[in-house]
Amino acid sequence: MDWKPEDLKVPGFLAGGIHCGVKEQGRKDLALIFSQCPARAAGVFTTNCFKAAPVLLCRERIPSGVGQAIIVNSGNANAGTGRQGERAARAMSKAASRALGIKDDLVYVASTGVIGKQLPIDKVLRGVPKLVGVLSETGIASAEEAIMTTDRFPKIEYGRFKSGFTEITVCGIAKGAGMIEPNMATLLSFAMTDLEIGIGDLRNAFRSGIQGSFNSISVDGCMSTNDTAIILANGMAGNKFPGTAAVSKFRECLSEVLTGLAKSMVRDGEGATKLVTITVQGAATLSDAKKIAYKVAGSNLVKTAFFGQDPNWGRIISAAGAAGIKLLPDSVEVVIGAVPVFRKGKAVDGGAERLAKIMTGDSFEVRVKLGMGKAAFTMYTSDLTYDYVKLNAHYTT
Amino acid sequence: MDWKPEDLKVPGFLAGGIHCGVKEQGRKDLALIFSQCPARAAGVFTTNCFKAAPVLLCRERIPSGVGQAIIVNSGNANAGTGRQGERAARAMSKAASRALGIKDDLVYVASTGVIGKQLPIDKVLRGVPKLVGVLSETGIASAEEAIMTTDRFPKIEYGRFKSGFTEITVCGIAKGAGMIEPNMATLLSFAMTDLEIGIGDLRNAFRSGIQGSFNSISVDGCMSTNDTAIILANGMAGNKFPGTAAVSKFRECLSEVLTGLAKSMVRDGEGATKLVTITVQGAATLSDAKKIAYKVAGSNLVKTAFFGQDPNWGRIISAAGAAGIKLLPDSVEVVIGAVPVFRKGKAVDGGAERLAKIMTGDSFEVRVKLGMGKAAFTMYTSDLTYDYVKLNAHYTT
Repeated sequence: MDWKPEDLKVPGFLAGGIHCGVKEQGRKDLALIFSQCPARAAGVFTTNCFKAAPVLLCRERIPSGVGQAIIVNSGNANAGTGRQGERAARAMSKAASRALGIKDDLVYVASTGVIGKQLPIDKVLRGVPKLVGVLSETGIASAEEAIMTTDRFPKIEYGRFKSGFTEITVCGIAKGAGMIEPNMATLLSFAMTDLEIGIGDLRNAFRSGIQGSFNSISVDGCMSTNDTAIILANGMAGNKFPGTAAVSKFRECLSEVLTGLAKSMVRDGEGATKLVTITVQGAATLSDAKKIAYKVAGSNLVKTAFFGQDPNWGRIISAAGAAGIKLLPDSVEVVIGAVPVFRKGKAVDGGAERLAKIMTGDSFEVRVKLGMGKAAFTMYTSDLTYDYVKLNAHYTT
Repeated sequence: MDWKPEDLKVPGFLAGGIHCGVKEQGRKDLALIFSQCPARAAGVFTTNCFKAAPVLLCRERIPSGVGQAIIVNSGNANAGTGRQGERAARAMSKAASRALGIKDDLVYVASTGVIGKQLPIDKVLRGVPKLVGVLSETGIASAEEAIMTTDRFPKIEYGRFKSGFTEITVCGIAKGAGMIEPNMATLLSFAMTDLEIGIGDLRNAFRSGIQGSFNSISVDGCMSTNDTAIILANGMAGNKFPGTAAVSKFRECLSEVLTGLAKSMVRDGEGATKLVTITVQGAATLSDAKKIAYKVAGSNLVKTAFFGQDPNWGRIISAAGAAGIKLLPDSVEVVIGAVPVFRKGKAVDGGAERLAKIMTGDSFEVRVKLGMGKAAFTMYTSDLTYDYVKLNAHYTT
């Protein structure tokens, strides 16, 4: 990459992160993203019936299509916390809007961390003035640091494009690790752009960007109570209202940013050592391709085989065949890297050495060709390792 | 139990197991179950699109409703083996029917083991005469031993009941371990009874027994290519054709045998250290209860928490809420053992010591009460452990 995270700026946006005391050991746990003027806002949230308190609040506000600040704590999900949790989310918003001098309903709130413990709201509220004090144009990396939980590395993606003669910036941050499943698999992600754009175009671009990114990854097939993705577009670039061509460039740029974040999330999936791209092609319909890709990408047996660097295509076809889609076994082909391993109902001999080399890599592709049509779908998945079990066997206690 | 596996007999049945060379180190790998007269036969098979060669053969024959022998090899699944595999399955059947002196289409074939390698059919064929030679009335335990793969212990269940004045025996054996998912989650299971019963009643009783047993367990959510469950009822008890009351006693007895096998399978799930019963109650419909139970029982995060003996109900509600069923979060209650942990949208305080004690046990129950209706469903699941990863990371290589 040709940029350093700590130098990143998006015109009109300030950001920052501090330690307020939710996490231990002085680690940052409170982040703020602030636009110097009200921005267009679009968001996508978990479809889990058990929605965290901040998600309920954001869903109330997002239909307005505007927003100016996002306040986020890590270390506590504020989920499964009842009315008290809802009051805490509102208090976070109120504290931020007061300290920033903006209207309360322009603030979005997100939380991530352990489920079911009450948020230590006093610590958060005491932290807000300090947080507003550290806001800066180059604070994006610091904000990202403050939203991380079990993440091993920060996730920031950045892109630029031209709308007419005006240079536009798009930047996104995310936290991932566990509870990542294809149905809005993000936990938290926030994007900023200085583009001036209509709310309809912004919503469409964001939804479609998420479709090909966060909705196309699988770490453990578990959907979180807190999934939140929000984009703010503040128009500070001063571009002319974008035409179809510029909107389409924006979609492409945003999609790259979100896909970059999604891949980082898989690479940083809890305990993951590999990023595996699963492409299902030759499906009769897109829905078929997705169902099969999801089944393969989500199979514990496939994922443990990836960890073991074992070209066990038997588990791949077994997972594909269990997706509830009618397949013609004799027309299915499985390719790992560039090595065909299964064709016409049985093993393709040879290529063992090349296969071994491919599978020791930290990323490779598995293609499942169905031979039934033209639809295709690509997903990103990780391997299932000892460390996934270790990290998750003792999380709350 | 008041019986020893090695003493078990079912009138009119002979069984046995030998080593023929598919597995290494002299371990038994070829089993035969033989009824001294043609028996009524019912079967249930994997719905995976990639069906192993022996499954294809059994599905051809099972509509006849009769059978006299089941030959089974372990160490090789004969799946993903194309036409050559299909010929091998037919050759196994032929060898058995010749050696037993019965019609070929009365033989059922099953295989379990690694997918995608050709079955060493010569070794199997050479083994058949020896196998027939060891058949005995008390050979059921030996046959069970020969169908095991990664199983840590044999699975045999046995029951008796009276049809009129006649004592009837029901016996089942199974092999399990991995690739166990609720949609016909058995890998292999074979049941024998000396009851005289009509084919319609036999089929209904077997299907319904499987519904509450093999279709209600989850180890890793992966459906195998080889799942096969067959029952033979040879009528040697000489009972009068059973009336409704006797059929109902048979259903109950068979259901107990199959549920016993299913629970053993979970207890022996790859790497499993715990058997956890997940009961979803208060659902609006049975289908809702099933979907939610499956989501909770199948969640990697829930299962790693069980391994960690961590009463992380946040993951339980998170999984329940992700099942795609509309829930009222405030009316949901979660109980572990007899300790309520979640109610009215938030944690129930207290009970930490009792909870810790419950979760260190090798089996306990989790109840999710939805408060929306009267339907309930119970599933059995295992924990997800280091050993699951270890066993599955290096299986073929």
